[in-house]
Amino acid sequence: MKDTVWLDEEKDLLMYIDQTKLPQNIEICSCDNIYDLHDVIKRLAIRGAPAIGVGAAIGLYAAAVRLGEQNVEEFLYSLDKFAEYLISSRPTAVNLSWAVNRMVKRAKAEQDGGVEHIKASLKQEALKIYNEDIQTCRNIGLYGEKLIPDGANILTHCNAGSLAAVRYGTALAPVYVAAEKGKKVAVYSDETRPLLQGARLTVFELAESGIDVTLQCDNMAASLMSQGKIDIVFVGADRVAENGDAANKIGTLGVAIIAKHYGIPFYVCAPFSTIDFDCKSGRDIVIEQRSPEEVTAMHYEKMMTHPNAKVYNPAFDVTPAELITGIITERGVFKPNELRNQK
Amino acid sequence: MKDTVWLDEEKDLLMYIDQTKLPQNIEICSCDNIYDLHDVIKRLAIRGAPAIGVGAAIGLYAAAVRLGEQNVEEFLYSLDKFAEYLISSRPTAVNLSWAVNRMVKRAKAEQDGGVEHIKASLKQEALKIYNEDIQTCRNIGLYGEKLIPDGANILTHCNAGSLAAVRYGTALAPVYVAAEKGKKVAVYSDETRPLLQGARLTVFELAESGIDVTLQCDNMAASLMSQGKIDIVFVGADRVAENGDAANKIGTLGVAIIAKHYGIPFYVCAPFSTIDFDCKSGRDIVIEQRSPEEVTAMHYEKMMTHPNAKVYNPAFDVTPAELITGIITERGVFKPNELRNQK
Repeated sequence: MKDTVWLDEEKDLLMYIDQTKLPQNIEICSCDNIYDLHDVIKRLAIRGAPAIGVGAAIGLYAAAVRLGEQNVEEFLYSLDKFAEYLISSRPTAVNLSWAVNRMVKRAKAEQDGGVEHIKASLKQEALKIYNEDIQTCRNIGLYGEKLIPDGANILTHCNAGSLAAVRYGTALAPVYVAAEKGKKVAVYSDETRPLLQGARLTVFELAESGIDVTLQCDNMAASLMSQGKIDIVFVGADRVAENGDAANKIGTLGVAIIAKHYGIPFYVCAPFSTIDFDCKSGRDIVIEQRSPEEVTAMHYEKMMTHPNAKVYNPAFDVTPAELITGIITERGVFKPNELRNQK
Repeated sequence: MKDTVWLDEEKDLLMYIDQTKLPQNIEICSCDNIYDLHDVIKRLAIRGAPAIGVGAAIGLYAAAVRLGEQNVEEFLYSLDKFAEYLISSRPTAVNLSWAVNRMVKRAKAEQDGGVEHIKASLKQEALKIYNEDIQTCRNIGLYGEKLIPDGANILTHCNAGSLAAVRYGTALAPVYVAAEKGKKVAVYSDETRPLLQGARLTVFELAESGIDVTLQCDNMAASLMSQGKIDIVFVGADRVAENGDAANKIGTLGVAIIAKHYGIPFYVCAPFSTIDFDCKSGRDIVIEQRSPEEVTAMHYEKMMTHPNAKVYNPAFDVTPAELITGIITERGVFKPNELRNQK
């Protein structure tokens, strides 16, 4: 399994697979400045909440190490500006601000050692975030795997697989672990309009890993569930509120309502860092609105609708806690209303 | 409002707008033989349950009038073969077999008059089916309009508008009538993957008619409903069983479940001929499976997923009666469980 984002330690570069080019091309790119990094995250070349966090941390280091400021105060001022700009690239994913703020906090804690020492500490912190992500996803997989019966048919929405993290992923980590343990599993992947992360990424990574995967349009999930073809649902999350409401890729809410209707367990898989205790409920989560062209023109190429059409295109929706069977984290599986005790 | 299908009475040709070319081009085509007609319906150049019925009736006449057989028995034998072949083009829409069987029945009723007399009767019957469709849709509109509050936001799935019938349509007929009567209405149209009948057709015809329309991906309907942005749902149907279960474009079931979850009224709009009293429940309805390429390649052009992906691609799903608030027909609005008394 290849990494999705990593640090080139010799050249101090953020390395990543450009996910907008999948599944046609596996393009490995590098980034060394904050403007490109903002763009890379904004246009979803790096996407998936955990991957965004790790990519932002490594990218912030790659940009900071190139800063010419010799004065600690000036260095930290620039780092703050970088951090602020970076966090504005995608408002919904909490991992982005979580990782960036952690980097800034580390820099400030090390300020007595001078600029070069801060730079070395930032490298350490970025690598720590990277390694923790791998371990976190692995642990989510270990907890989630226990919930998968042998021979299970699993439905997922969007891509919260290895391409959404450094490795393993969140929602697909239980699937990879189950397959490792020799369980027979089959995954049904929603294509996930408008940007088709399910068709392009989830199907791609599962097929490449030799796991049985079937693609369906988002609107076919109800048909599958009504026929008893789905045993369990795993999805990721971009931000989980203290009360257990979870923001994830647009369409997740509908899947949760339909799963509830048919009595199918619905699990959210997310690193603990995705839980935002400053958000009391889903109502506090800012939902990113994206451009109409994502919906009206497939791959920005061919107009599929009337030129005057208005478009509703939120990137995420919020699934209320009462529709969520459990939240699978690296610390264990929690009922949504148990989160606040874990603070 | 242009007709979608009609008879060129001088040349005895089925005329139709090729719906696969919309919204880029409005192409008017003709058809005079059963092989082309089968293909035209199969590839959805004529689609929408009522339009398929009218198109099949007119097309069957255009093909039959060209038959060289002078002997009544031979003529009726050929007509039977034509009918059988035509009905096989799309298994789910009941209007197809309803219209074709009505044409064959008329021919047989007129067989004592000789071949030329049968041909004239077939023309009469095709025109009757055509005119009845216009009147039927208009009446569905009149009944449905009463259910629309002024200022309503209406959600629809797929295209059951004027392009799905001769004029007015079924699900959109109440919208057109409400607009005629000066009510303020806004429509939210699901794009309807995989073939985008919502984006290509519903948005097109509403925008052309000056009605406020917003396009969203299918997976965004739950987000809209959760925010109180939808007051009522209107969809069409391809076949309604005696118990009120309704088969319609894939994705309708999910919309119905989500509408129920939020307490939003969900209406099926269909000509009475869509009710199949031979189908006791939705379990008896055959669901057409369509080719994987509809899902994997947008407009058959660019591969959007892994080449090894398996694909689930049913054309329809069945919404059980308990999720349906009412069925709006040209004879009035019925609760699903009242249908059997109307037999």
